[in-house]
Amino acid sequence: MPKELTIGLVQQACTQDREENIRKLETGIREAHARGAALVLLQELHNGVYFPQTEGEDGFALAETIPGPSTERFGSLAAELGIVLVLSLFEKRAPGLYHNTAAVLEKDGSVAGIYRKTHIPDDPGFYEKYYFTPGDLGIRPVETSAGRIGVLICWDQWYPEAARLMALAGAEMLVYPTAIGYSPSEPEDERERQRGAWITIQRSHAIANGVPVAAINRTGFEPPLSPERDGIHFWGNSFVAGPQGEIMAQTAADRDEVLVATVNLDKTDIIRRAWPFFRDRRVDLYGDLLKRYRD
Amino acid sequence: MPKELTIGLVQQACTQDREENIRKLETGIREAHARGAALVLLQELHNGVYFPQTEGEDGFALAETIPGPSTERFGSLAAELGIVLVLSLFEKRAPGLYHNTAAVLEKDGSVAGIYRKTHIPDDPGFYEKYYFTPGDLGIRPVETSAGRIGVLICWDQWYPEAARLMALAGAEMLVYPTAIGYSPSEPEDERERQRGAWITIQRSHAIANGVPVAAINRTGFEPPLSPERDGIHFWGNSFVAGPQGEIMAQTAADRDEVLVATVNLDKTDIIRRAWPFFRDRRVDLYGDLLKRYRD
Repeated sequence: MPKELTIGLVQQACTQDREENIRKLETGIREAHARGAALVLLQELHNGVYFPQTEGEDGFALAETIPGPSTERFGSLAAELGIVLVLSLFEKRAPGLYHNTAAVLEKDGSVAGIYRKTHIPDDPGFYEKYYFTPGDLGIRPVETSAGRIGVLICWDQWYPEAARLMALAGAEMLVYPTAIGYSPSEPEDERERQRGAWITIQRSHAIANGVPVAAINRTGFEPPLSPERDGIHFWGNSFVAGPQGEIMAQTAADRDEVLVATVNLDKTDIIRRAWPFFRDRRVDLYGDLLKRYRD
Repeated sequence: MPKELTIGLVQQACTQDREENIRKLETGIREAHARGAALVLLQELHNGVYFPQTEGEDGFALAETIPGPSTERFGSLAAELGIVLVLSLFEKRAPGLYHNTAAVLEKDGSVAGIYRKTHIPDDPGFYEKYYFTPGDLGIRPVETSAGRIGVLICWDQWYPEAARLMALAGAEMLVYPTAIGYSPSEPEDERERQRGAWITIQRSHAIANGVPVAAINRTGFEPPLSPERDGIHFWGNSFVAGPQGEIMAQTAADRDEVLVATVNLDKTDIIRRAWPFFRDRRVDLYGDLLKRYRD
């Protein structure tokens, strides 16, 4: 198990040209590796534009199996560079059964494990419930040569329950492939509150659980995919936080960027001894967390 | 139920002179009321210095019953001013059975309800497990004329579980009486991480649950109560955050201060519709939250 782990995050804008998006990702992965990354993270649904911006049958044509074309292609690169790589894919599991799934590739290019997005959003411009069946694999980290990686996906990031379950299941870090942005009509103060909340709640998962957190978001403006929408301005701001929630590195909002940061996985035990939150959890009183609401 | 609620927080340094501390609190409460507060919050164990800085039998002499002298005295003031007041007391429940307890006083001076601290810390300088039996009342808000108040106490603030349970039980706001500070030997960068983590995780409870959060911490340096300790520098920084975690008002670190802020309780429904985290909780997958660790 490594003590020091260098993580690379590839933040980029996507276009309708899938092959171009993937080539750009490959360039970014190579750059992260050249700068020392042993673990590289890609943004949510990184191969294309964010198709759940609208509901339409065409979207399903983008789905693929796991293993499949993306795990093959990126697996070759992972093996060539000897890195662990976290992909975010539109998974076709069976006819009429699709998931938003992360595939974690080992440094020999094999699939070390997958995670299916647990919490599925649905609001104007983010119509994910139409496409994605909620994950049924539970909330478990993937064991890799770079450590036990707790992959959670986008909407999951708003749920302290998900972060806690990953940590209780032994995750040594939490990573969040993400596609989040503003509507162009949002005023600046509301943008700031949204972006601030997104950063704050993920830093809090680091704090509550004493583990590093990496969030990798897309950037760029993606024009409307249907006449009733107005497009999404993805806000970038990918970051890596240490186990006290301290920001270690962060990208800009508006440009393609490869971010590299080194975390020390041994710090978790040190921090959890100083702040022994796990010692004092009142599991005898938490039963109502399993209810929708306590009326 | 009020839509707009003005909250007052009385942050102060304490000395060994209990009567002086209480008089200062009364002055602060009157100031908060004069500035429009309908709900006033006091810091954790506000009547005296933070006695759990050391373990000693003398500390128990400070405990009192609820109702008792403090609910009587502060109850008169609450009734005179017509405010809801949250006290933080060392409760003597029975011989050998003591709690760290918040008492919520109605505006007629009666006790609307109590909450007993659920998560009890214990680390050098904060020897609370010696004094306080963990709370057995569960995690439920107190119904008052100022709204359903979710009182949690200090160490509870590090637990997203506690905040969630309060919100699921209908709390319209979360309030945290607190006594947290640095050891004088802590270097500045570590102080910053600790203070940052403390603010960040409480803001995250506002975000995850779509409710306002108020944290009221003590200030001032309290000298060592035993030769092997070096005292505590309480870091103040009391604040009120809105339901997106945005800071609305905040005190300084190093001085007595009365903070007043107005929150809009109707915003919770609006925010929860925009960010429908409650809709999408996967209660079917949360069972392991009731375990100590999932090995």
